[in-house]
Amino acid sequence: MSYLTQTLSKETVFRDPVHTYIYVQHQIILDLINTTEFQRLRRIKQLGISSLVFPGAEHSRFTHSLGVYEIARQITTHLNARYSSTTANDGQWHPEEQMITLIAALLHDVGHGPYSHTFEHIFNTNHEKFTRLIITTAGTEINTVLSRVSPDFPKKVASILNKTYPNQQVIQIIASQIDADRMDYLLRDAYFTGANYGTFDLSRILRLIRPFQGNLVFSITGMHAIEDYVVSRYQMYLQVYFHPASRAMEVILTNLLKRAYDLYHRSLSDVTIDTSFIPEALLPFLKGQPTLTDYLALDDGVLMTYFGKWRTSDDTILSDLAIRFLDRKPLKSVILTQASTDTLPLVRKLIQQAGFNAQYYTAENDSFNLPYDAYNPHAKNPQTQIELLLPDQSTVELSTVSPLVKSISGRQSGDRRFFFPKEMLETGTNDLFNPIYVDFQHYINNNYLIGPNS
Amino acid sequence: MSYLTQTLSKETVFRDPVHTYIYVQHQIILDLINTTEFQRLRRIKQLGISSLVFPGAEHSRFTHSLGVYEIARQITTHLNARYSSTTANDGQWHPEEQMITLIAALLHDVGHGPYSHTFEHIFNTNHEKFTRLIITTAGTEINTVLSRVSPDFPKKVASILNKTYPNQQVIQIIASQIDADRMDYLLRDAYFTGANYGTFDLSRILRLIRPFQGNLVFSITGMHAIEDYVVSRYQMYLQVYFHPASRAMEVILTNLLKRAYDLYHRSLSDVTIDTSFIPEALLPFLKGQPTLTDYLALDDGVLMTYFGKWRTSDDTILSDLAIRFLDRKPLKSVILTQASTDTLPLVRKLIQQAGFNAQYYTAENDSFNLPYDAYNPHAKNPQTQIELLLPDQSTVELSTVSPLVKSISGRQSGDRRFFFPKEMLETGTNDLFNPIYVDFQHYINNNYLIGPNS
Amino acid sequence: MSYLTQTLSKETVFRDPVHTYIYVQHQIILDLINTTEFQRLRRIKQLGISSLVFPGAEHSRFTHSLGVYEIARQITTHLNARYSSTTANDGQWHPEEQMITLIAALLHDVGHGPYSHTFEHIFNTNHEKFTRLIITTAGTEINTVLSRVSPDFPKKVASILNKTYPNQQVIQIIASQIDADRMDYLLRDAYFTGANYGTFDLSRILRLIRPFQGNLVFSITGMHAIEDYVVSRYQMYLQVYFHPASRAMEVILTNLLKRAYDLYHRSLSDVTIDTSFIPEALLPFLKGQPTLTDYLALDDGVLMTYFGKWRTSDDTILSDLAIRFLDRKPLKSVILTQASTDTLPLVRKLIQQAGFNAQYYTAENDSFNLPYDAYNPHAKNPQTQIELLLPDQSTVELSTVSPLVKSISGRQSGDRRFFFPKEMLETGTNDLFNPIYVDFQHYINNNYLIGPNS
Amino acid sequence: MSYLTQTLSKETVFRDPVHTYIYVQHQIILDLINTTEFQRLRRIKQLGISSLVFPGAEHSRFTHSLGVYEIARQITTHLNARYSSTTANDGQWHPEEQMITLIAALLHDVGHGPYSHTFEHIFNTNHEKFTRLIITTAGTEINTVLSRVSPDFPKKVASILNKTYPNQQVIQIIASQIDADRMDYLLRDAYFTGANYGTFDLSRILRLIRPFQGNLVFSITGMHAIEDYVVSRYQMYLQVYFHPASRAMEVILTNLLKRAYDLYHRSLSDVTIDTSFIPEALLPFLKGQPTLTDYLALDDGVLMTYFGKWRTSDDTILSDLAIRFLDRKPLKSVILTQASTDTLPLVRKLIQQAGFNAQYYTAENDSFNLPYDAYNPHAKNPQTQIELLLPDQSTVELSTVSPLVKSISGRQSGDRRFFFPKEMLETGTNDLFNPIYVDFQHYINNNYLIGPNS
Repeated sequence: MSYLTQTLSKETVFRDPVHTYIYVQHQIILDLINTTEFQRLRRIKQLGISSLVFPGAEHSRFTHSLGVYEIARQITTHLNARYSSTTANDGQWHPEEQMITLIAALLHDVGHGPYSHTFEHIFNTNHEKFTRLIITTAGTEINTVLSRVSPDFPKKVASILNKTYPNQQVIQIIASQIDADRMDYLLRDAYFTGANYGTFDLSRILRLIRPFQGNLVFSITGMHAIEDYVVSRYQMYLQVYFHPASRAMEVILTNLLKRAYDLYHRSLSDVTIDTSFIPEALLPFLKGQPTLTDYLALDDGVLMTYFGKWRTSDDTILSDLAIRFLDRKPLKSVILTQASTDTLPLVRKLIQQAGFNAQYYTAENDSFNLPYDAYNPHAKNPQTQIELLLPDQSTVELSTVSPLVKSISGRQSGDRRFFFPKEMLETGTNDLFNPIYVDFQHYINNNYLIGPNS
Repeated sequence: MSYLTQTLSKETVFRDPVHTYIYVQHQIILDLINTTEFQRLRRIKQLGISSLVFPGAEHSRFTHSLGVYEIARQITTHLNARYSSTTANDGQWHPEEQMITLIAALLHDVGHGPYSHTFEHIFNTNHEKFTRLIITTAGTEINTVLSRVSPDFPKKVASILNKTYPNQQVIQIIASQIDADRMDYLLRDAYFTGANYGTFDLSRILRLIRPFQGNLVFSITGMHAIEDYVVSRYQMYLQVYFHPASRAMEVILTNLLKRAYDLYHRSLSDVTIDTSFIPEALLPFLKGQPTLTDYLALDDGVLMTYFGKWRTSDDTILSDLAIRFLDRKPLKSVILTQASTDTLPLVRKLIQQAGFNAQYYTAENDSFNLPYDAYNPHAKNPQTQIELLLPDQSTVELSTVSPLVKSISGRQSGDRRFFFPKEMLETGTNDLFNPIYVDFQHYINNNYLIGPNS
Repeated sequence: MSYLTQTLSKETVFRDPVHTYIYVQHQIILDLINTTEFQRLRRIKQLGISSLVFPGAEHSRFTHSLGVYEIARQITTHLNARYSSTTANDGQWHPEEQMITLIAALLHDVGHGPYSHTFEHIFNTNHEKFTRLIITTAGTEINTVLSRVSPDFPKKVASILNKTYPNQQVIQIIASQIDADRMDYLLRDAYFTGANYGTFDLSRILRLIRPFQGNLVFSITGMHAIEDYVVSRYQMYLQVYFHPASRAMEVILTNLLKRAYDLYHRSLSDVTIDTSFIPEALLPFLKGQPTLTDYLALDDGVLMTYFGKWRTSDDTILSDLAIRFLDRKPLKSVILTQASTDTLPLVRKLIQQAGFNAQYYTAENDSFNLPYDAYNPHAKNPQTQIELLLPDQSTVELSTVSPLVKSISGRQSGDRRFFFPKEMLETGTNDLFNPIYVDFQHYINNNYLIGPNS
Repeated sequence: MSYLTQTLSKETVFRDPVHTYIYVQHQIILDLINTTEFQRLRRIKQLGISSLVFPGAEHSRFTHSLGVYEIARQITTHLNARYSSTTANDGQWHPEEQMITLIAALLHDVGHGPYSHTFEHIFNTNHEKFTRLIITTAGTEINTVLSRVSPDFPKKVASILNKTYPNQQVIQIIASQIDADRMDYLLRDAYFTGANYGTFDLSRILRLIRPFQGNLVFSITGMHAIEDYVVSRYQMYLQVYFHPASRAMEVILTNLLKRAYDLYHRSLSDVTIDTSFIPEALLPFLKGQPTLTDYLALDDGVLMTYFGKWRTSDDTILSDLAIRFLDRKPLKSVILTQASTDTLPLVRKLIQQAGFNAQYYTAENDSFNLPYDAYNPHAKNPQTQIELLLPDQSTVELSTVSPLVKSISGRQSGDRRFFFPKEMLETGTNDLFNPIYVDFQHYINNNYLIGPNS
């Protein structure tokens, strides 16, 4: 038996509260889990900042990655058992694709770093690029394991994540509008936050999947289970992922990193700026040329350790923002509308007058998501649509038969908010700044920022 | 209204997957949660190393502390509503004890540090002492909040955790054989590990509690619910807390810290030893005189960041153990018996011959727990026994009416194990050390280390 | 203390898997539960025929009634504690309404009979009328209990169920688009069927309710929890309550009762028809003049006992339908469209030719439900709309802020089906009727009945 | 393919809240489920009277039987995949035993009748005998299905339930101290009562089963999961199955049936006794010679329908007991000890003096169960003990390694109670019988009946 398909003499299991058990049956899967790059995912929270609002949500990308693998294992086992291809080009499932699918599922997030979205925004890194690098760079433990299969195997795995792999079914299991990744994170985030609106009927959906003309589709008999999955995803975005308090903490993190970035870049031309606050490990990111090794040295704890040092920095903005982040002191926010955008300069000015540097103590933040979209060739990232299989072997697109899905399909959900220091909402204080606060509060109504002349 | 009993204009809740919601109704509770010392608990895992074996168990001491508060809130609300004292010394519950009970529940673990049990063992610190220091030291945010009640209030709170507080009922809610702490951690650890044997019927137990002659007892009608709680605790110890793989990782952590400790102390007299590996923040602990500030600067991420640097240390033992810890490469173990203790020098010698420094690559580790004990004045830490209230208002001790509890009462459960490198179990290799491995394996039978002459 | 508010010396609880416990704290509630009319609900299934398709759903109207009481208890306790009226006409909640609300919640379904919807359709009875009769008729045990409060108290309770009670908040707790009844049955039916799409966040919704100008509204902060409730209800209707196989069994029950009804009425003029099949207890219903006593003598088991006797009736239609019902042999069905209605005479004729009396072996069945509707004064039963409260104390109607709810609001969901014997779908048999089956099957495509000329 | 192993073209599933789905993959299983004898189990409650105390527990023997089938399916699928016999007499599992095992699992309870234990006690019937009769009697639908396999197949199936089947592994899956039956009923009864102490880790136990020398044993690695199962069973017996209020209702049912039996037998010699109360369907049981057809005509609803008629019987004992049963008016009870047995004649006399016929209004009732027993050849029903497999392929019996199991092994758990009318506990009434009540109450202390001279 080749290394790729070599089974363990004894199945290994991981206890998992979401799937009960994660079953590992192949040597290569166990070897990948035991690599240093994969173990590093234990030190990176799946939801980053959300645990500051949903305190149970302290789970890591490690357990999520195992969960995606487990769902992929269940899907491919089901396809192997019932829908194996019998003739070339019959559009059915090719069982020999199972192992590479499992590997891609396991590794799909391996390049994530601490607080990825925020970090990438400031430092211009990209976790997807690092995922591919970890897989394809000679010398990583993951690359070493994968290369035992064949020299070009790492590239094949990476091509699934690139969506350039020729078999569309494999890509759809890993990255589509209803894939192993999304199904695991919805269930897992629902379990750990305690937000039960994220649950849906995984066992039923798994029974509905079937190959059709080289793609994967879902039997129409379970349309409502698919619909429920789409609605659950919508709910999790609006209730958990876009929670204003999480975004308020994210704004603080963004501004904290921006402050560090700005200080460093100003120090290049201004020698009076003390750069001793910069940890060696962050330097490559500030300089803009991190290596894979630099990147792999980071995790949540490493960043937080640096922030801990910044608590006592001489730069009062850096230290104050570090304290606000570590001790969870979120900004407040209001919803922005088209009209109220004109108010922003006014309120920013008031905030500045109240003693806050508006550049680091305010932010606009959009959180919009497309919960589902039918295929739209003009979209920036056209999505494979969810197709349902009718008894006569024709297919229909989900939103054409579900009014619920249609109502949120192709439509951005979320809001745009303006964040500012909590102090601006104080009332009845004897504070020096009290008149400024009163002025500021005139521009707020029903959680909205209102137009300058309202 | 005094600060101690001041209610919030609007109740605050924390979503919690174990108790659905944590309800905060008082200003002082919210203020304590928002202190830097309490927020720090977010960065310390409740189960430390166990998440390396039960990957879901990544929850922090922060959520546990909220959970203990919530159970204490439910208990005291129940006692307030039904069993309030009406005459002095009637042995019933005094409602004015509610607030201090809630505060003690919330703060009972605030002095925990990263991987407390291991860390304390090497550095001779004590999380209970630090809990008291955080509460009573002028200048901590927690002390500042508590002092607003009255100058001696911090000391009163600390006296509950010291068990010197005069009201026994309050102490029993916080620290007894069936207290808010134990009830929360069993349910929480069961939820996050996915190990359902830790569950028991919390809502029923809460209904059974009643004051009796100044103590808290449980109505006999729910004896089986209490029995089930004791058995669940026994099961969680044996199946989760004492899991051999967790202890194997704990041994690695112990030996890693010990190596750092030894290197530092040898460096005092041996200048050839490079001490650049020592992070500044660890120095006070190596020297043995950490201040409260030193202590509060530590958390899981900080320690792991240091270990991350040690990966590349020139000291091969330090670097190898750091890698084994961060990349989860546990030792193997066998059970030790009285007889097989004599075998230890022999096998240690073989391990040394195979190239491992036995001081840092082996360990004996006891994990024993007393799941329950009737009051025993001769015990090292005599425990308040669980009393059941009969219809005629007399009481009986739990183990006298439960054969299940009797069977594990006053009896240490657990085992004693010898840990060693996995390499010693290799078979059929061409390895240079193969004959040594074969010799070593002669001493192992059915997961036991056997006597030298067996 | 008056009988209405008299508390029990010791709270009584019922263990309930949905709400953990049902708490009974008042004598009158316990007395009502112990009446013969209320205990009879144990013998009437909540979902009637659905357990033939979702086998776990064998729960009774008894547990549902307790559950509605419990939710009403939680709502009114919350309103009592936080939103008690302080001045007349302040639009807040009147705590003295609590007891009558609990009683109405408990008794709202007490007039249900076996397989109510089907039974009422054939025998022209009405469970709501019987609910009022049980409450207001002198001599029932329930009336006797209620009359202890005051002679006009039974009528007051009935007026809540009539929706003529003056306090709209009370009516909204018992009968509105988001009431204790609907919330309990969704959670309960989801629990017992195992269909998790019925779940929603009860504890959060309970926290959102507040009085507003004499009505009950919901804080906008929890809009998504309300939205999720509406969607869950929609899902339960389409996936559980309208399941084609349940409706197929309901058609059999309808036709079985119709056959009995027809036989009886034909026997009045045709003495050759043997009427010995008619159980005495059904006679008043066949004659059209059942008394309350007649009605209360029925339950699921009584009806099934009669059907058991009909198994061996000489009337082959009666016996065959009884067997099909008891032994669960559902009809098959296809969806009807406007166009395919014209096909019905043709397929009915074929069914008749295949040896089935089309009157008793076929049926059209509509199952449509309005999952939610904004207030529509022109509707047959105008519904109170769900109002959300904004921070500025104005309100908005739910569907104006939720695209999901808007998509299903005011829109009938469900389908119209034609039911027929399974035999008509047989293929490849040597059956005499085979050519007829083949003809019949021409009219079916993709689970739809197609037009006659398609 | 033979009928026995013929698979369905499309797997059929039953939604089940305990196992998520029941998977039916073979034609013969579906055919057996669709028989009239199996469908009849829908009309017989699994826990009989317990739903009067745990109202959620209204589930039927139908869903339990499906659940036992499903667990057996999981066990045999696991054994087929990993432990198939390769040489004769290797003690491993024979995959060709799977189908008969599934069939025996499905049918193991098919002979149960309404309130079996009580009914059998009075009418001297035996549900195990009827199970075998249903399987082996020509003409039943089940026998017809089974006979399609081979003429002797029904007898083979029955021999498993008789424990005379040669393959011990098959018998152990169906009827041993840890079998599919017990595992399903514990989980199911826990789910529907809401009593979570009945839960245990099914998925783990299923992973531990392996063949060993022709028997089934469990890997020692999961000892604590097996231990937890035994303790859960113990808890369910003491907390649910033996609940005093359930037994009090069972006593009423027993005495009601006994009254009917006595009246009938007295009527044979005393023509003044009106026998019109006797429903035709009960006559064969009163006469002592029921046929299989008579037996199959009974179910819960049929019995309850008769009791409904007895409500208005002229025999006041019959009518009063019928009302007490239908309207749930339990007797009260106290625990009996060796000493207090002597008190019984005294208290029975007082009860008689208070106007109750002690023969029908009192009872002694033992509820004892052996939660687990090591093999004991001297026991009345020697039980196969639970064996654990060590790494060296030797086995140990469970109670030798588990102090918890040892503490309840071979030891009857439960109690012996004396039941009597609630009226005897009244206090402070002006009732004529008040002095008798006072006398009676002297004999009760702490829920115990005390000795006559205490």
